[in-house]
Amino acid sequence: MISKEVQENLKKSSWIRRMFVEGAELKAIHGENNVYDFSIGNPYFEPPKKVVAKLREIVNSDELGTHKYMDNAGFPDVRQKVAEDVNKDIIEPISHEHVMMTVGAAGGMNVIMRTILDPGQEVIIIAPYFAEYIFYIKNHNGVPVEVSADPKTFEPDLKALEAKISDKTRAIIINTPNNPTGVIYSEQSLKDLAAIVAKKEAEIGHEIFVISDEPYKAIIYDNGKAPNVHNIFKNSLIVNSYSKSLGLAGERIGYIAMNSKIEDPKMLMGGFSFANRTLGFVNAPALWQKVIADSLDDSVDIKEYEKRRDVLYNHLESIGFEMVKPDGAFYLFPKAMIEDDVAFVMEAKKYNLLLVPGSGFGYPGYFRISYCVDMDMIKRSLPAFTKLAESYKKK
Amino acid sequence: MISKEVQENLKKSSWIRRMFVEGAELKAIHGENNVYDFSIGNPYFEPPKKVVAKLREIVNSDELGTHKYMDNAGFPDVRQKVAEDVNKDIIEPISHEHVMMTVGAAGGMNVIMRTILDPGQEVIIIAPYFAEYIFYIKNHNGVPVEVSADPKTFEPDLKALEAKISDKTRAIIINTPNNPTGVIYSEQSLKDLAAIVAKKEAEIGHEIFVISDEPYKAIIYDNGKAPNVHNIFKNSLIVNSYSKSLGLAGERIGYIAMNSKIEDPKMLMGGFSFANRTLGFVNAPALWQKVIADSLDDSVDIKEYEKRRDVLYNHLESIGFEMVKPDGAFYLFPKAMIEDDVAFVMEAKKYNLLLVPGSGFGYPGYFRISYCVDMDMIKRSLPAFTKLAESYKKK
Repeated sequence: MISKEVQENLKKSSWIRRMFVEGAELKAIHGENNVYDFSIGNPYFEPPKKVVAKLREIVNSDELGTHKYMDNAGFPDVRQKVAEDVNKDIIEPISHEHVMMTVGAAGGMNVIMRTILDPGQEVIIIAPYFAEYIFYIKNHNGVPVEVSADPKTFEPDLKALEAKISDKTRAIIINTPNNPTGVIYSEQSLKDLAAIVAKKEAEIGHEIFVISDEPYKAIIYDNGKAPNVHNIFKNSLIVNSYSKSLGLAGERIGYIAMNSKIEDPKMLMGGFSFANRTLGFVNAPALWQKVIADSLDDSVDIKEYEKRRDVLYNHLESIGFEMVKPDGAFYLFPKAMIEDDVAFVMEAKKYNLLLVPGSGFGYPGYFRISYCVDMDMIKRSLPAFTKLAESYKKK
Repeated sequence: MISKEVQENLKKSSWIRRMFVEGAELKAIHGENNVYDFSIGNPYFEPPKKVVAKLREIVNSDELGTHKYMDNAGFPDVRQKVAEDVNKDIIEPISHEHVMMTVGAAGGMNVIMRTILDPGQEVIIIAPYFAEYIFYIKNHNGVPVEVSADPKTFEPDLKALEAKISDKTRAIIINTPNNPTGVIYSEQSLKDLAAIVAKKEAEIGHEIFVISDEPYKAIIYDNGKAPNVHNIFKNSLIVNSYSKSLGLAGERIGYIAMNSKIEDPKMLMGGFSFANRTLGFVNAPALWQKVIADSLDDSVDIKEYEKRRDVLYNHLESIGFEMVKPDGAFYLFPKAMIEDDVAFVMEAKKYNLLLVPGSGFGYPGYFRISYCVDMDMIKRSLPAFTKLAESYKKK
């Protein structure tokens, strides 16, 4: 009925999915309010007022042609505005010719993989990683190659990464601010990585794309900042979406912005357009292209996410959890109190806490808390975390 | 820079794309109004008033949660309404569990291919066909197998089709009303095909999906009707979009509706959801799901397309073109006046007529006219068609 590979994948299911099902069971038993669900990354906030206003303005106008096909890469004026937004802290500016509007970041990732991968070529991912990367790569006959981040900082282990680069390496995916750790890779890390990539590119004789998946780039705390990767790498591709920054996850709107230093941007864009069309995206939703074009520097209220991080981080630290304080995104990735993260997460369920084991991100021994949730739920959950921690201290 | 296969495909380009570029050149020389562009299938009409009203109602309301993620298959209430719409002329009804909302029909087709194909399995397509089918199949390591339609009726040649079915056959794509011929396959044709499929399924020991791509099902003339394929086949999958019927091509909204007689609908839907998620569609755009849910039986003004068909068909027939009168869609597929359809289309360019050669649809010797265009342009173009025909009579 369905392909062997899809069947295999369905059997394994994803951890996030499994927790979703188990959560539904718990909620049925204990009541919605008594289950603390930290398993899902569904952005909590409504779109900013400016976005809603723009949406209403467009929809209420009598302008014609809003909903038709356009070029597979998107409306040129929207692409130009996105380029200018990316240019805000750039050294060598890009233009609309470097930007393609996509069906969210996930759509953008698949477009890139379809475009650049010959069968059997490798893409390096850094654990802990967003588990979907594996599928994005395999969908297009690529081979994911994992390297680990340093558990003390969650920065990539560059020595290990360098050792994994071969002539089969086509790309490296970085994700900063990171899901699931919330860490922003430091400028120094990225510069060191760039030096390694440049050296290896010269050795193997073809470019290695650095794909920077940045859906959390607008969600950064403590007045921090994630560097513009185009200033650091040569063959970098920024993939972004407005799912988190503008609360539009269900509407599927994002972009790919390539580095202007890439040797043949026209050929690469031709490939992206072909992939966008033939994979069936065709183009990013027309209306949403027009809406976000005037809200590129807008965002949901980041301070609200920061408050949530602080309440949870401070409490978890006070009761003995070890973790790196997140710089952004809306995740915490503490060390489990026992080696077996799956057993730990199962134990947490006894206290009605729904967490995701680090194994689901290629990084056992840890667990993810997604705090894009109601603040009241967070506050109600704190005693449950305390009990969970205490149960391990007793043992 | 890009994969070898994508590079190959870009070199070949598509005929429609090529005509687009050549058309732009012609328009630059002769002026927009003096070039008769029949090359592109970009739906001409704006969305119906009811659709615009519903869009405004939703967007102007203060309801929360409109733009968030939902289940990968779509909003359950929207899926239920689509099911009820499909049920209007069905014998064994389907429910929301058989429906997945998709990013247009193109998204739906890719989701199906990703879900059902093991590498090397074959999908039969009937020439003349929508050329993108080839990519949808190859994207997911399938092998397209072509059979021809009868040139007198453009109904599938069922004998030829039967001969191509082997144990590698996973699916057959039908497209009725057809792009590029405008023909609706007769109920008898489909019943005969169903008998062949059932026989072959028993022989080879696995189901053969009949994928009915129906984006033109609402665009039918002369009070005609295309049969509900679920009444005729067992393992049928309807793929549809609101691009043409509601003038929403740029917004990317469509669906897959499977036959309730399929053996394990839950497993198939699980596969579809997995594919929708991991291919990066994630879900069909949230707002558009809600908009179309109340406009399922609505459509742009079909009579306007019918008028265009009549003007063109009558004129072309009067000047000696041979063709099957279209039952629906917005295409004509006449026989070229010489064997070499590409040479014919190049000749037409001399009269500022932009047409697409049948070769672009796997059916040389013919050409496609897409008449989803301005009526005035059609009227202005008629003398050019006459001159084109006369130039061949002289030879």
